[in-house]
Amino acid sequence: MKIEGNEYQTIWFENNLVKIIDQTKLPHKFVIKNLRTIKEAVNAIKKMEVRGAPLIGATAAFGLVLAILENNEQTFLKKSSKDLINSRPTAINLKWAVDRMMKKLSGVNSHKTFEIALKEANEICEEDIKFCKKIGLNGLKIIEEIYDKKKDTVNILTHCNAGWLATINWGTATSPIYHAHKKGIPIHVWADETRPRNQGANLTSFELNEEGVKNTIIADNTGGILMQRGEVDMCIVGTDRTLSNGDVCNKIGTYLKALAAYDNKVPFYVALPSSTIDWNIKDYREIPIEERNSEELSQIEGLDMDGNLKKVQVYPKKSKSMNIAFDVTPAKFVTALITEKGICEASFSGLKKLFNK
Amino acid sequence: MKIEGNEYQTIWFENNLVKIIDQTKLPHKFVIKNLRTIKEAVNAIKKMEVRGAPLIGATAAFGLVLAILENNEQTFLKKSSKDLINSRPTAINLKWAVDRMMKKLSGVNSHKTFEIALKEANEICEEDIKFCKKIGLNGLKIIEEIYDKKKDTVNILTHCNAGWLATINWGTATSPIYHAHKKGIPIHVWADETRPRNQGANLTSFELNEEGVKNTIIADNTGGILMQRGEVDMCIVGTDRTLSNGDVCNKIGTYLKALAAYDNKVPFYVALPSSTIDWNIKDYREIPIEERNSEELSQIEGLDMDGNLKKVQVYPKKSKSMNIAFDVTPAKFVTALITEKGICEASFSGLKKLFNK
Repeated sequence: MKIEGNEYQTIWFENNLVKIIDQTKLPHKFVIKNLRTIKEAVNAIKKMEVRGAPLIGATAAFGLVLAILENNEQTFLKKSSKDLINSRPTAINLKWAVDRMMKKLSGVNSHKTFEIALKEANEICEEDIKFCKKIGLNGLKIIEEIYDKKKDTVNILTHCNAGWLATINWGTATSPIYHAHKKGIPIHVWADETRPRNQGANLTSFELNEEGVKNTIIADNTGGILMQRGEVDMCIVGTDRTLSNGDVCNKIGTYLKALAAYDNKVPFYVALPSSTIDWNIKDYREIPIEERNSEELSQIEGLDMDGNLKKVQVYPKKSKSMNIAFDVTPAKFVTALITEKGICEASFSGLKKLFNK
Repeated sequence: MKIEGNEYQTIWFENNLVKIIDQTKLPHKFVIKNLRTIKEAVNAIKKMEVRGAPLIGATAAFGLVLAILENNEQTFLKKSSKDLINSRPTAINLKWAVDRMMKKLSGVNSHKTFEIALKEANEICEEDIKFCKKIGLNGLKIIEEIYDKKKDTVNILTHCNAGWLATINWGTATSPIYHAHKKGIPIHVWADETRPRNQGANLTSFELNEEGVKNTIIADNTGGILMQRGEVDMCIVGTDRTLSNGDVCNKIGTYLKALAAYDNKVPFYVALPSSTIDWNIKDYREIPIEERNSEELSQIEGLDMDGNLKKVQVYPKKSKSMNIAFDVTPAKFVTALITEKGICEASFSGLKKLFNK
């Protein structure tokens, strides 16, 4: 990933600090923020300074490293684990990362916990980068096939940000796009604005700009008519939790785009590392769906005429608003899942075959 | 319609001026604006100071009255008619109103044109109020049926503003809601924010508040999960142009809600006065779909901390955005059309029977 031409990743550990890109400041300001304590790590996840299922998993892993620096007693680590898992409810990666860290630390001699925890957190990051790269190479084949037939710019619609900013590097949904772009395939991305937090406009369009990939921001309402007009060749999104039956929980509004894709015979792909698969929950109605502060809807931040960040109240003050953060796309609307292990049908048999479950 | 407890209508003629409520100032300021010339009338439509298919039809009618006050020669009136029809492309009501006015004025003695034009414009308004009231009474039956079964609050989702602000009074989609509310049926409305211009938040929620109807603003992305959860009993929207085969052109995003309603077996109604029916176009791809300035997406106006109206730039400055204003919902996703003449299937035979075509 490149920002102003320099290579970055979204999170790293340096001088006993966790360094993150504060994503609430993007696209207007690029700020590297230091996390010093477990509490700061939990808050960074809650406030969405870091977001995206794989990245919040990695942040949780580094959060435990910070916890150990503070106090490496088991009771403190257990409490820290719970705080991290509870910081946001929907993405399964938080629990996945914390469980993995705690398993590694179980029975470890206390003077070695820091070293082992840091090694494991770094491995989670390395693995995520590797998996996202593989997702990209697997998804690239789909884009190549479309390009070989069309011999013209491939138009890809994405929702929210499942880009490098949602992972450590490469992204999930964006990784096939970046790989295709590097191969010289002409790509144009329709970036859904993604209300209420505008991650499509603020993050996806921002990172596509930095990588030199053509893109256009559209209101979330727009994808339907673009598909009716044949102006979308494929959709690709990320996921916060994928059930073993292939149902996909992702940013609110994903379901509506999947319905439009289905109605217009546009292929709809979901890209994910295996860390976002939930092998336990069988019914999507059991997924905990986050509801966030309604001010995220009614107030919007942007640059005023003088270039200063200003928050404005958009809605009538008397009005109530509600902010549900995720929805579920039933498997039948998903053309295929793109994982680090390959591409499979969005179904139990598809996932089982790929992951030997 | 009530604003701060006082009865209003959205447009009227007084002292040789056309009076409108400037809807670009809502919900933060309630401003009555005077239109003095045909040019000001055209601009009011273009800038969406007045909007909503029936209301821009009425504004066009009064625009011709203003034109006559300036210069009642046929060439000027013909040019004015053209300017009005071209001011916004999608809603058929503009052409309908201008054609009706010009037909009435044809062969009229020049010293009588003003009087006849004003009478006809007022009649267009009176008729709209009457038709919207009938739409309300017809739609009321549907709400009553749901309430009789449910015996609990009826949850209605609407998109954009097809309220009294879009008509002269009552509204189209809101008229059944207001009639049900007056009858004491407990109603709660999910008001889609309706990006990019936020008419759902700024106008629909505003007018429902003024009428005392419970409502909650949601991001446009949210309707799908609410329907999956059974939290929407019916959808009702307006339309800018309804084809004789029942296809419905309405605010961008309507199609996505219709798809979600269809997938979740939630009834999806479209409310319209007959002035929005286009009996000529046979294929929805021939409907001229307006594309508006992309700054309507990238910049948002609201109240700052000091209560002053401020516009902020939300998107990355480098990013391109696109602003398509309407989409088309194919008839198969529409449960029924609610018109002033009754309720009918969204089909040629349904409309034909009702309107004796």
